[in-house]
Amino acid sequence: MKLILDNATTYTKEQAFADAKDVAPYIAHLAGVASENNYETDEASVNLPFDSAISEQVDALVKNKVSPSLRYIFVVGIGGSNLGTKAIYDALYGYRDLGHETRTRMVFVDTTNAAMLRFYTEELVRSLQNPDEYLVVTISKSGGTTETLANTEILLAALGQHVGGTKERTVVITDEGSAFWNAADMASIDHMAIPQKVGGRYSVLSAVGLFPLAALGVDVQSLVKGARDIRAYCLHADIENNPAWQSAALMSFAYRHGQSINDTFVFNSELESLGKWYRQLLGESIGKEHDRNGKQVHTGITPTVSVGSTDLHSVGQLYLGGPKDKVTTFVYSNDHTDAVSVPDSRVFNDTVAMINGKSTADIMSAILGGVKIAYNKAQLPFMEVELASVTPYEIGAFMQFKMIEMMLLGNLLKVNPFDQPNVESYKTETKRLLEN
Amino acid sequence: MKLILDNATTYTKEQAFADAKDVAPYIAHLAGVASENNYETDEASVNLPFDSAISEQVDALVKNKVSPSLRYIFVVGIGGSNLGTKAIYDALYGYRDLGHETRTRMVFVDTTNAAMLRFYTEELVRSLQNPDEYLVVTISKSGGTTETLANTEILLAALGQHVGGTKERTVVITDEGSAFWNAADMASIDHMAIPQKVGGRYSVLSAVGLFPLAALGVDVQSLVKGARDIRAYCLHADIENNPAWQSAALMSFAYRHGQSINDTFVFNSELESLGKWYRQLLGESIGKEHDRNGKQVHTGITPTVSVGSTDLHSVGQLYLGGPKDKVTTFVYSNDHTDAVSVPDSRVFNDTVAMINGKSTADIMSAILGGVKIAYNKAQLPFMEVELASVTPYEIGAFMQFKMIEMMLLGNLLKVNPFDQPNVESYKTETKRLLEN
Repeated sequence: MKLILDNATTYTKEQAFADAKDVAPYIAHLAGVASENNYETDEASVNLPFDSAISEQVDALVKNKVSPSLRYIFVVGIGGSNLGTKAIYDALYGYRDLGHETRTRMVFVDTTNAAMLRFYTEELVRSLQNPDEYLVVTISKSGGTTETLANTEILLAALGQHVGGTKERTVVITDEGSAFWNAADMASIDHMAIPQKVGGRYSVLSAVGLFPLAALGVDVQSLVKGARDIRAYCLHADIENNPAWQSAALMSFAYRHGQSINDTFVFNSELESLGKWYRQLLGESIGKEHDRNGKQVHTGITPTVSVGSTDLHSVGQLYLGGPKDKVTTFVYSNDHTDAVSVPDSRVFNDTVAMINGKSTADIMSAILGGVKIAYNKAQLPFMEVELASVTPYEIGAFMQFKMIEMMLLGNLLKVNPFDQPNVESYKTETKRLLEN
Repeated sequence: MKLILDNATTYTKEQAFADAKDVAPYIAHLAGVASENNYETDEASVNLPFDSAISEQVDALVKNKVSPSLRYIFVVGIGGSNLGTKAIYDALYGYRDLGHETRTRMVFVDTTNAAMLRFYTEELVRSLQNPDEYLVVTISKSGGTTETLANTEILLAALGQHVGGTKERTVVITDEGSAFWNAADMASIDHMAIPQKVGGRYSVLSAVGLFPLAALGVDVQSLVKGARDIRAYCLHADIENNPAWQSAALMSFAYRHGQSINDTFVFNSELESLGKWYRQLLGESIGKEHDRNGKQVHTGITPTVSVGSTDLHSVGQLYLGGPKDKVTTFVYSNDHTDAVSVPDSRVFNDTVAMINGKSTADIMSAILGGVKIAYNKAQLPFMEVELASVTPYEIGAFMQFKMIEMMLLGNLLKVNPFDQPNVESYKTETKRLLEN
């Protein structure tokens, strides 16, 4: 993974880097959390990729639960409990769920949607013959997420009725000591802990992401290694060598100069869910009513996800002609080994002759190249993240880079990137409505 | 479909309605376009749902092309050529593509993504036995869309090699007289026209949307009837009876008071693609460098799509605590006939006891109710669109309402909602790069 700032104009970049100097002591603090393997601070997640105990526990449980008969892994969870897993699943298996291949599918059960639940319980569940064919992984950090608990019960009831074996085929992932943890314990259902100080949106490299992905057969060792390898750079004390610091610096600078929207513009469409994972990370970490001193500030950067080239035909006009209120990060893979070519002999010969014999790589590179020139001409600021390939290793690196970037950005914008106090307002009202 | 403004405070609503009075002559013009069935103006799309010639042409071609053997309809198109069709497909069949049902699937081939094309050509195409099992619908208004032409050739080459019959199994939809039209004509490939003055993002009720949806078996007569029935309201000369005028008035008012982001927050997750259809409609129609007088203005409202309850666990914190730069439209269905219930006897008994025996409808209604109370308390402006059900009729009404709303909003913000001049900047560069 490589962060490219060629197109941040020199002036902006130098000014942004200079403005971000104050974060140096916090980076030193983060480096300390890393070197001490400290799990007692909010930044504990930086230690997850080095945690061999988690890997071993995941491996053991996978061995225990997964056989070649496994057809569906139901991941029941919402927000930080499933966005990271879905990002990786869609990046690696994007589009393939449509086919009739006989591989294990991951089925995401997030919101309490009746049409979705009916399809899962009436079609998927009824197609199963024996308990080895399914696994339910139900994840809630607090152990009290309404949708997750409701969906878990609805799904388990259907599985119990049609296939059986639900207690043996369920794994609970939650905070140690939560009501969910205790209930799993009482019922002798397997359960794994999320380290206390690791919040949902920073938890993908804990059991939350590693267990369901490993159960599917994803190379989670590579995922974790990608995160491990980039961490040293993201904690580097010199901004010139630290991509997380550079990105946070440009985002903070842009925000203070009126660019309050951050667009993650992926040019590999299978990375859309990775953009959505980042949408939570940025939205929830920086969107705050109060700053660290308790002052009412209503800080926040609105994250958007765009897909190239699709969204050039949707919101491209707005981006190029509309208000200059956005900073863009183009994310793309440089691996074109699977490119497909337009045949030389065509059915529609006279139309768009310039694509004759060109490959998908040629076409997408030309479109991205055209867009970068157009952004430059319109003076729209952007960064680029180049992935060597769409693989667990590169995605692990990207996620670790972004999680550390977010901690630094919180520090620069003087907000707490680890809490989410305002969601309580709707949850309290929902609870009241449900209890009446 | 019902627009509900109970939560727009009286002051704002009255002020917004008063500020939007100037659009009255334009509404009279639109009513004239409708009563004269005028296809020579930019607003021609308002006449599509009354066009029996299109319906008859679509019916005849469906009869000719569709048999019970049909397994895959490949819709090759991007932006306005596929977003409306995908919105309706996902609303009606959302989640169901995962299963092994033997119904016809719609496969969207939009961007030139190598991983996607490999899967389609190597897995789906090779699973086909004879030409009746597939249909390729390739759509480009201009007839010169790079991605669409490239994908069409790649797909047809694979189909030709493995199954054959490609010329008989392809339908081209484009402007009459385009290079694409002429090439289809020369090759004796069936083709249908898009009325000249109907732009891509207003074209869902032309052959662009109606043909592939009818081929799949969607009740397009209901879709069109929904649009027809709401048109009279959306052209009504009194704002109190005109939902399109009301919505445009509130959006225009909010934009002029600093709310430059518009969030379509769907509380039926299968409507996410409908939100993405609207994202193009709003982004491309209002995002403009110049106003109607040629003055440089950089006008634009950034559209976002949020999914309830999923995104409450993602960007809910930002929305409730962050900058007050958004106007929200909650979209939800009031049909709960397919609700599923949490069993009374639960596996995890002590956790979130308030959901015991509650249905998905109870839970989602309580969450939406809680969110509305929280938005009100935080003084975040919102509208509500209540659909009687997620059916072609209601979706047709919603789309017609939104397309007319957009014409009115363009008039209020003094921009041309029918063009997209700035996308030429990247297209020119892309062409140069591809030709070199």
